[in-house]
Amino acid sequence: MFVKTGRGITMLLVIVMTLAIGLIGCTSETAAPKETTTGAKAAAEVMAGFAGSPTDEYYMCTFYQGADYWKGVFIGFKQAGDALGVKTFYMGCDDGDAAKQVAVFEQIVAKKPKGIALSPTVADAFVEPINKAMEAGIAVSCFASDSPDSKRITWITSDDYRAGGEAADFCAKALGGKGKIGILERPAQNNHAARIDGFEARIKEKYPDMKVVARGQAEGDQTKAASLTSAMIQANPDLALMYCSAGMEGMGAGTAVKEAKTNAKVFCYDADPAVIDMVKDGTILACMHPNTVNQGFWSMMALMTYNKGIINPISDWKQAGRSPIFPMMNNGLDIVTKDNGDAFYVK
Amino acid sequence: MFVKTGRGITMLLVIVMTLAIGLIGCTSETAAPKETTTGAKAAAEVMAGFAGSPTDEYYMCTFYQGADYWKGVFIGFKQAGDALGVKTFYMGCDDGDAAKQVAVFEQIVAKKPKGIALSPTVADAFVEPINKAMEAGIAVSCFASDSPDSKRITWITSDDYRAGGEAADFCAKALGGKGKIGILERPAQNNHAARIDGFEARIKEKYPDMKVVARGQAEGDQTKAASLTSAMIQANPDLALMYCSAGMEGMGAGTAVKEAKTNAKVFCYDADPAVIDMVKDGTILACMHPNTVNQGFWSMMALMTYNKGIINPISDWKQAGRSPIFPMMNNGLDIVTKDNGDAFYVK
Repeated sequence: MFVKTGRGITMLLVIVMTLAIGLIGCTSETAAPKETTTGAKAAAEVMAGFAGSPTDEYYMCTFYQGADYWKGVFIGFKQAGDALGVKTFYMGCDDGDAAKQVAVFEQIVAKKPKGIALSPTVADAFVEPINKAMEAGIAVSCFASDSPDSKRITWITSDDYRAGGEAADFCAKALGGKGKIGILERPAQNNHAARIDGFEARIKEKYPDMKVVARGQAEGDQTKAASLTSAMIQANPDLALMYCSAGMEGMGAGTAVKEAKTNAKVFCYDADPAVIDMVKDGTILACMHPNTVNQGFWSMMALMTYNKGIINPISDWKQAGRSPIFPMMNNGLDIVTKDNGDAFYVK
Repeated sequence: MFVKTGRGITMLLVIVMTLAIGLIGCTSETAAPKETTTGAKAAAEVMAGFAGSPTDEYYMCTFYQGADYWKGVFIGFKQAGDALGVKTFYMGCDDGDAAKQVAVFEQIVAKKPKGIALSPTVADAFVEPINKAMEAGIAVSCFASDSPDSKRITWITSDDYRAGGEAADFCAKALGGKGKIGILERPAQNNHAARIDGFEARIKEKYPDMKVVARGQAEGDQTKAASLTSAMIQANPDLALMYCSAGMEGMGAGTAVKEAKTNAKVFCYDADPAVIDMVKDGTILACMHPNTVNQGFWSMMALMTYNKGIINPISDWKQAGRSPIFPMMNNGLDIVTKDNGDAFYVK
């Protein structure tokens, strides 16, 4: 019944009619539930229905490929790949250069894999490469960063705006709901901007005695982050919190606060091992971390589900050239503290 | 390697160490990609890893069980269940009464199924029943509506606020960006409130020549919706749009506009067959519809993934008593028009 055909809607009518019969008489308290499958299928059929073939290859493609963040994502990608019985590989470029990552992506495409989970360093640079891969029958999904104007089947990410709000609640609790705040941000990066926007919106809404008094941009440079923080503390000796949109900024701020011997607390994002070390020794109060394992796991599940063609939404997705599966998944976030820090090391 | 243990973190260290070895030397342009699985597994192992057992039973539980909306959800639930090789059943109560739905839910729990996908009619009424089921080893996920204070593993839903914004863009295009608007709403229902809020926010942000001039509550009563609409047209003969948060309201508004012989257009939500009929005959301009098939499909996938214990996020989920999988999934939305209406019938 789930054979992929060019006429999904016609197939659906058959399913719908079968279902309609199944639903008739299925009342609540009185009738016994109606079994609407024809019984579970034989193992071989199930394999055909969902699991992959042992020769199927799936790739994960990143930039700054050695960064700790991706290791957690690949753990989840591989967990799903192993469970589905397919091979999983990891490739990326060594820096954030878009042309270099496109070259790696095209190397992967040339291998004709079944699917690619991609975190594009620049959205626009990947529109054509992704579309070409999709047209060649290679499924592409995005995770972490996105290429929304491409034909990628879905996007799996964290809700950074929401994270900012939760970070504000956490910090407010730690500060007793009052105090001056310094911010280190990267406004050009969408996800970083959302971390700041969500934080500021929540402060404005719920914490009238907390106030942002200084902000700066360290551009991912730990030393610069430290000197910006030192200047902020000099101008505001009673600074209560440094809120930083990334780990490098958080580490720099932590070092500066320690040197200044003030009571300011530091909150940042992305639990790289060096950040966790500083959370554990108290230099950084806490760190918000995307659930990277879920990010990778559901990237693989999305690719496989798309490839198997087992979901037939009643919609115009084929005519409209859109994906048949979910449009976006929120992979969730955790707050890493001294108490739970050990669980987040990925070395 | 994915055997469920009480010490997920310890297991992870093994995985992490294996992975670390796999990642070393995996550079971009020069080196060949490192195969990080030990090869795909034999069929029997894959079955053990992901697919269900043929005797496993999964239930979907709703209220107003005969409503068309659920039929699409169950199609997706069954598609996933069939692919995974488990039995799927549908039960619900006949009206929106919370006590009656709780009774049906408890009937299902007594059958000791592997999992239940639940759309609770009242969030609070289900906190204890859900928690009891989870403690008894029966996985529960929510879809459409939620019970956020319970221990349900996840929530699969539409982003109604975002839908409201997309509806505003669609209506603005149809009206040439200007005109008076009447609203029929149900402010007590969270998802309906979001449909209105998202719409109004987008109008305010992008369409200065569109203005809400009247609003009313028909409480799901088609006749009341028609008379409210008639009154709005009488007070504003040049009314350009009736924006309605549900299908009953949309059908009532459509009938009233037709009788008044004005040029007002009607936009509503939830593509029940009677609504599609009116979209097709031009009484209703268009209708926003959640992707119900994805809602059901991913409810099953979430339950199965949780039960198999194959995802081990690097986080404090076990200590914190939270779910190991994604916190929320957006199942997507479609705009149903005269052109694509036929694809959305579920009879």
